[in-house]
Amino acid sequence: MEKYLLNTRSEFETHLKELVEMPTVSAEPERAGDIRRCAEYAARMLGAGGFKSGVFETAGNPIVIGQYIHDERAQTVMIYNHLDVQPADKEKEGWRTDPFTFTKIGDKYFGRGTTDDKGPALAAFLAAHYAVWKKLPINFFIVWELEEESGSTNFHELFGDRYPFLCRPDPDVVIVSDGLWRDREHPAIEYGLRGNLCFSLALQTADHDTHSGCTGGFARNPIVELCALISRMVNAVTGDIKIPGIYRKVCGVNLEELENLSRGFDQEVFKKAWGLHTTRKMTNEEAVVSLKLLPTFEVVNISGGYEGPGFKTIVPHRTEAKISMRLVPDQNPEQVLEAVKKFVARMNPDVEVRALRGTAKPYASDYKNPYFQMLQQIVGEVTGKECALDRSGGSIGAVGTMAEYLKAPIVLFGLSLPEHGYHAPNEYFEWSQAEAGIRIFAEYFEEISKLKSPV
Amino acid sequence: MEKYLLNTRSEFETHLKELVEMPTVSAEPERAGDIRRCAEYAARMLGAGGFKSGVFETAGNPIVIGQYIHDERAQTVMIYNHLDVQPADKEKEGWRTDPFTFTKIGDKYFGRGTTDDKGPALAAFLAAHYAVWKKLPINFFIVWELEEESGSTNFHELFGDRYPFLCRPDPDVVIVSDGLWRDREHPAIEYGLRGNLCFSLALQTADHDTHSGCTGGFARNPIVELCALISRMVNAVTGDIKIPGIYRKVCGVNLEELENLSRGFDQEVFKKAWGLHTTRKMTNEEAVVSLKLLPTFEVVNISGGYEGPGFKTIVPHRTEAKISMRLVPDQNPEQVLEAVKKFVARMNPDVEVRALRGTAKPYASDYKNPYFQMLQQIVGEVTGKECALDRSGGSIGAVGTMAEYLKAPIVLFGLSLPEHGYHAPNEYFEWSQAEAGIRIFAEYFEEISKLKSPV
Repeated sequence: MEKYLLNTRSEFETHLKELVEMPTVSAEPERAGDIRRCAEYAARMLGAGGFKSGVFETAGNPIVIGQYIHDERAQTVMIYNHLDVQPADKEKEGWRTDPFTFTKIGDKYFGRGTTDDKGPALAAFLAAHYAVWKKLPINFFIVWELEEESGSTNFHELFGDRYPFLCRPDPDVVIVSDGLWRDREHPAIEYGLRGNLCFSLALQTADHDTHSGCTGGFARNPIVELCALISRMVNAVTGDIKIPGIYRKVCGVNLEELENLSRGFDQEVFKKAWGLHTTRKMTNEEAVVSLKLLPTFEVVNISGGYEGPGFKTIVPHRTEAKISMRLVPDQNPEQVLEAVKKFVARMNPDVEVRALRGTAKPYASDYKNPYFQMLQQIVGEVTGKECALDRSGGSIGAVGTMAEYLKAPIVLFGLSLPEHGYHAPNEYFEWSQAEAGIRIFAEYFEEISKLKSPV
Repeated sequence: MEKYLLNTRSEFETHLKELVEMPTVSAEPERAGDIRRCAEYAARMLGAGGFKSGVFETAGNPIVIGQYIHDERAQTVMIYNHLDVQPADKEKEGWRTDPFTFTKIGDKYFGRGTTDDKGPALAAFLAAHYAVWKKLPINFFIVWELEEESGSTNFHELFGDRYPFLCRPDPDVVIVSDGLWRDREHPAIEYGLRGNLCFSLALQTADHDTHSGCTGGFARNPIVELCALISRMVNAVTGDIKIPGIYRKVCGVNLEELENLSRGFDQEVFKKAWGLHTTRKMTNEEAVVSLKLLPTFEVVNISGGYEGPGFKTIVPHRTEAKISMRLVPDQNPEQVLEAVKKFVARMNPDVEVRALRGTAKPYASDYKNPYFQMLQQIVGEVTGKECALDRSGGSIGAVGTMAEYLKAPIVLFGLSLPEHGYHAPNEYFEWSQAEAGIRIFAEYFEEISKLKSPV
């Protein structure tokens, strides 16, 4: 392993540089060419690593697939990562380095996608490559999506008639490396995710913005009306959602689980890690529940009116708010959207509710499953740190889809740290996390290879 | 007059083209050069018209001044217009022609500033030029501001130690041609204006936007908090302002005045003229009161969060709302700002209230003054249409300043129509309104010249 790791760092950095410098922003249609280029590069990389690889076409962005079959009777591990990234704007967001230039400073790798999720994808791949190199009796299916940040709208196509993998349709375990440790000292394996529902609220009251001296008072102000509507949908102080019926299907947790999830959570550490100046007033347990076990209602942006410099004395004619609601088991995104539509129709029937790309189902697995327990032990041994079994507050659309089509447990083990700046400016990854990831996954694969295949 | 008007149209169009094609957007600092160029061009134009002219420097944008003294004992008319314009963005706002290219289509002149206020400025100037050409016993002070759309912050400097006009410091009457007729068939002279208070509400809760899957539920959402705050400041349905004390100093009106102001007001005509699809539910009288006699609270824009294309699942870290409040006599902008600050400090002490450029005092004069009555009669004769004595819902910062320094009544007679698109895309002016304006002002000046000077 040590010898393998010696060469691996330069290989890791070379590939990460190539991947980061392809701006695979799936939210921006003009990046289609970069996404295509990235898919082809990644497939070549898998091929060179001893995997049978290809680019799987969907109605949206392609999916990169890799396959290594040692023996059909051996355990099969599916590894999921994504190679698309969040948007990044150097000037507006205040990046210190160009987001699409791979910048190595010491052991840190700066650039959009370094930590979410190109770096972890490479770490998991290099561990699988190590298993292949060691000729372990284990099979791999590698799945690299390029539409995760846009809601994995077409990911389900992978599991339809054209399912590209040989061997049994079901892997024995699915590993998803796209998430965070609690902090540097507290690695975490996740067995649950929140879902996501993205929608917009739009209100148009006139053909164009009008002079507020001429129409103000009699004309409707769509920004003011959306503010009123939003303040009826969510309590700004507590974050409680006020739309009727929203909490009806929220799944409870038992005390053991809540205790596990809260262990080691420290508000001050959390705030510092995320750069939060203040937070909602909560106890540690309330904060954990709000972050992992309860739905949220986040207004991401309100557009409309005069958006230029200085001031313009107008009454806006159109406003749109973009909203993301995180959902939890057993909430169903379609049902929540219906509740939103019904409420809006009652409160302000002129407001149009439109679902946006990004819907993801919530997911939760049984953390007592041996694939979780085994990995938890390995993480502890490799890092010397206690590893938690956790639930994530984030969403990975592909996980809901995989849970729908595959029977295997889905093990979420990310390699990122809060300070890496997930979805934030100055995103970075670092070699120590990559290295730990490669070691952990390599050992995990070795342990899995010793298991009897259930077939 | 007819002979004079024959040549005047081409002169009007030539000058309007030159003025419109200098993008004198006072809200945009990068336009300083265009503003300077425009001031110099306008001063040369006044000079060529027989006026002693110059550029008066202030701490902000310069003011163009022109003076014609026939006889110190004659009546002195001060004419105020402004040559700066609102911002314009062809793509974003949907202009059919370039806003800073003068486009003549039939008798219509398209371009930013054609109707607000470059066209009316030229019409009033050409009428004064006619009086000079006819050697009428009348004096003129011409004042063309270049900072009106940014709140006339420095306009008061004109009336300080460096007061540039010879002759008695006080004109006998001030004419401000920067406003609208009710509609094409209903000219109106205005004897009152609403004031304006512009401020921002800003809330920052973190260093940067954070991943809503990681922080959502515990992190504060500044957009949601501003929505809640705004919905406590104003009733979205009625427009009533909910900040305590705001209506305390709102001056009442008598029934005669209310009847005058409401006469001929038709909601459907108004909506069509302004492109409003729907309005607040009001009777005609309530609408008039809301448009002219009551303060307003307009949110002009809310910025912050993810403003790019597509979607980004973040919790925003900073939000700013820009607000314009129209004020009425006897409200005082400073006192209203204090009430806003006090309310915000109580509701959400983390929100920062900042006054923005654009403050204007409300103004009202006595509509029974002979200078109003005289003009009302002339407008009726020249246009063959009944001319109303009205109050405007808009604000002209300079008017409050002039009212403070000068004793003369301020007569507001605009030449624009609602369909001209004040502060809106596809702004235009038209020759028939310019021509009527020249005729009306020429006759008005002639009548004024017959009055005995009060000295």
